[in-house]
Amino acid sequence: MISCDTVIIGAGPVGLFQVFELGLLGLGAQVIDSVPQAGGQCIELYPDKPIYDIPAVPACSGRELIERLQQQIRPFAPQFHLGHTVTTLERMQDGRFRLQTSGGLVFDAGAVVIAGGLGAFAPRTLNLPEAAPLVGRTLHYKVTRPALFDDQDIVIAGGGDAALDWALELVERARSVVLVHRSSIFRAAPASVARMQALCDEGRMQFCEGDIVGLETADDALAQVRVRTRSGMVQRIAASHLLVFWGLHPALGPIAEWGLALERQQLVVDPATFQTSVPGIFAVGDINTYPGKKKLILSGFHESALCAFAVHAHLHPGDKVNLQYTTTSPALQRRLGVRDAERDAVVAEPPPRVAATA
Amino acid sequence: MISCDTVIIGAGPVGLFQVFELGLLGLGAQVIDSVPQAGGQCIELYPDKPIYDIPAVPACSGRELIERLQQQIRPFAPQFHLGHTVTTLERMQDGRFRLQTSGGLVFDAGAVVIAGGLGAFAPRTLNLPEAAPLVGRTLHYKVTRPALFDDQDIVIAGGGDAALDWALELVERARSVVLVHRSSIFRAAPASVARMQALCDEGRMQFCEGDIVGLETADDALAQVRVRTRSGMVQRIAASHLLVFWGLHPALGPIAEWGLALERQQLVVDPATFQTSVPGIFAVGDINTYPGKKKLILSGFHESALCAFAVHAHLHPGDKVNLQYTTTSPALQRRLGVRDAERDAVVAEPPPRVAATA
Repeated sequence: MISCDTVIIGAGPVGLFQVFELGLLGLGAQVIDSVPQAGGQCIELYPDKPIYDIPAVPACSGRELIERLQQQIRPFAPQFHLGHTVTTLERMQDGRFRLQTSGGLVFDAGAVVIAGGLGAFAPRTLNLPEAAPLVGRTLHYKVTRPALFDDQDIVIAGGGDAALDWALELVERARSVVLVHRSSIFRAAPASVARMQALCDEGRMQFCEGDIVGLETADDALAQVRVRTRSGMVQRIAASHLLVFWGLHPALGPIAEWGLALERQQLVVDPATFQTSVPGIFAVGDINTYPGKKKLILSGFHESALCAFAVHAHLHPGDKVNLQYTTTSPALQRRLGVRDAERDAVVAEPPPRVAATA
Repeated sequence: MISCDTVIIGAGPVGLFQVFELGLLGLGAQVIDSVPQAGGQCIELYPDKPIYDIPAVPACSGRELIERLQQQIRPFAPQFHLGHTVTTLERMQDGRFRLQTSGGLVFDAGAVVIAGGLGAFAPRTLNLPEAAPLVGRTLHYKVTRPALFDDQDIVIAGGGDAALDWALELVERARSVVLVHRSSIFRAAPASVARMQALCDEGRMQFCEGDIVGLETADDALAQVRVRTRSGMVQRIAASHLLVFWGLHPALGPIAEWGLALERQQLVVDPATFQTSVPGIFAVGDINTYPGKKKLILSGFHESALCAFAVHAHLHPGDKVNLQYTTTSPALQRRLGVRDAERDAVVAEPPPRVAATA
């Protein structure tokens, strides 16, 4: 049994920064994530893609963002339990929480912060019996290593940005690319659609309007994709890999059974505290909803800061915590490890100048 | 008359990032600030001091934060009008706003975002007739150049972090330091107070409990500070510089006359839109208040993002703006100037991978 101030469920960017904000207030955190690495969708979906709207970071990749956050939270030495799914969450008589994970860990936590992000959402999958054994090998719902498709014959299914963006990217790598979509109306950005159409005109890729109705395999690998076209005919497309991008659907898993108020499969929170409908359970990042909510990483950062104060108030009712600034507060600087206790000064710098008033 | 989508009042970190968030939505901004340089308190008060709680920026100075933000907003080519105070703000019949500045500029704006920050606050000053002519020369309410005090006899007034931090820093530079505070109870961090007391014990500085009742000058410069101590006696302290750190008080100036709802001298906003009580006038950063508000730069960043969507809705009612991501949206990438129109691809990178669903 691991006893702690806080369990954070989700090690994406917002879960990581939640460690920082709790740490500044002197609260420790245990971080659980179902995938084997920290970073959430930044690592799972766009490790090498640029992000431009992190304030004061004009451009960085998903991986770089996570590395920066990992460096920032290092002073608080968070403990990570990766590859664990939270299977049960119970509120105990004393108001604390007992969590169990798929990996057999048991936590006794004063508060729980759910930072499940899009990680709580799952891709819509191909509903064919022959699909399941192929997943991750020749049938893909996400791309983790584009080089896998070098010189391959691939079929990409979908009409949104993910399908189009990948079609446009992989056309440079693959031997052949066929885009399959049930309609000639696309949700993707018009510029991407125009580019795809131009590539089709040039014969560099093909578009097939229809529904995937079956897969043919050979030696346990994909060989052909059967598509029923609008004429009713079934067309067979030779393919060694099929990539399906039909969007995500909420898959809250056990969270849905915890009795938390939901609104369109998202956790309803009070935007002053980011507490859910259950006292002591908080939610930050893409998994929550409140008036005006935008699913932006920078909003998750703000949410985690206010949430930390609310977690502190929950754990230590009656203790007033004044807002302090890292620029001026020796207490925060000691927690960050940037203040030398003997000299009582910031290690790299002279003592700070002016306290902002809070 | 300068006609524009938005006037942002305040060029501190949040005002600067507001330019970015408006720019992503295709809205232009004119930025007005009363001081002659952008950066707000980051530049005015702590240009060289480290900040540790900007997400994904483990440490940076105030100046570096502003430089990073300036770089980030460059694609949107904001126009700055520095050294201008907004003197009048009127709502016109057509719902647009007319602003005039102290420098004689006139703006016709669709919306106004007040990002006044602590810049709308003024230091509490010494209420003595002989003080006014000395301000900025030998009487100081802030420190912009510590070297000014090298080998000088200085008196520092105040009992908060600013007074103590400066006393502890300047004791290394000045010939003598006397701290004057009306009580022996300090608001400053206990560690700073302990350090000050130790320095007093070592004879490296002095503490004088009492009230400043007068200043003596010689050749238009400060010569002595008169302090009435608790015994009722007046003591004269030889000093070439007096630094007063009695905190800040709200000084909204003309903003207070604009009829916006205030709560303890802060602008009340709806945290879903950051609109004030007047439609079309928004407020972000330290100048606003809403349930749970913490005066953190990272909260201001979040506020500016949601505010941008609300400004767009105000200017273009009925136009639905879907949340797009800089990682995946060609439209945003073109606005950021990172997408090559001919290749229709991100300049530095292959096209983005996966669209997060909004």
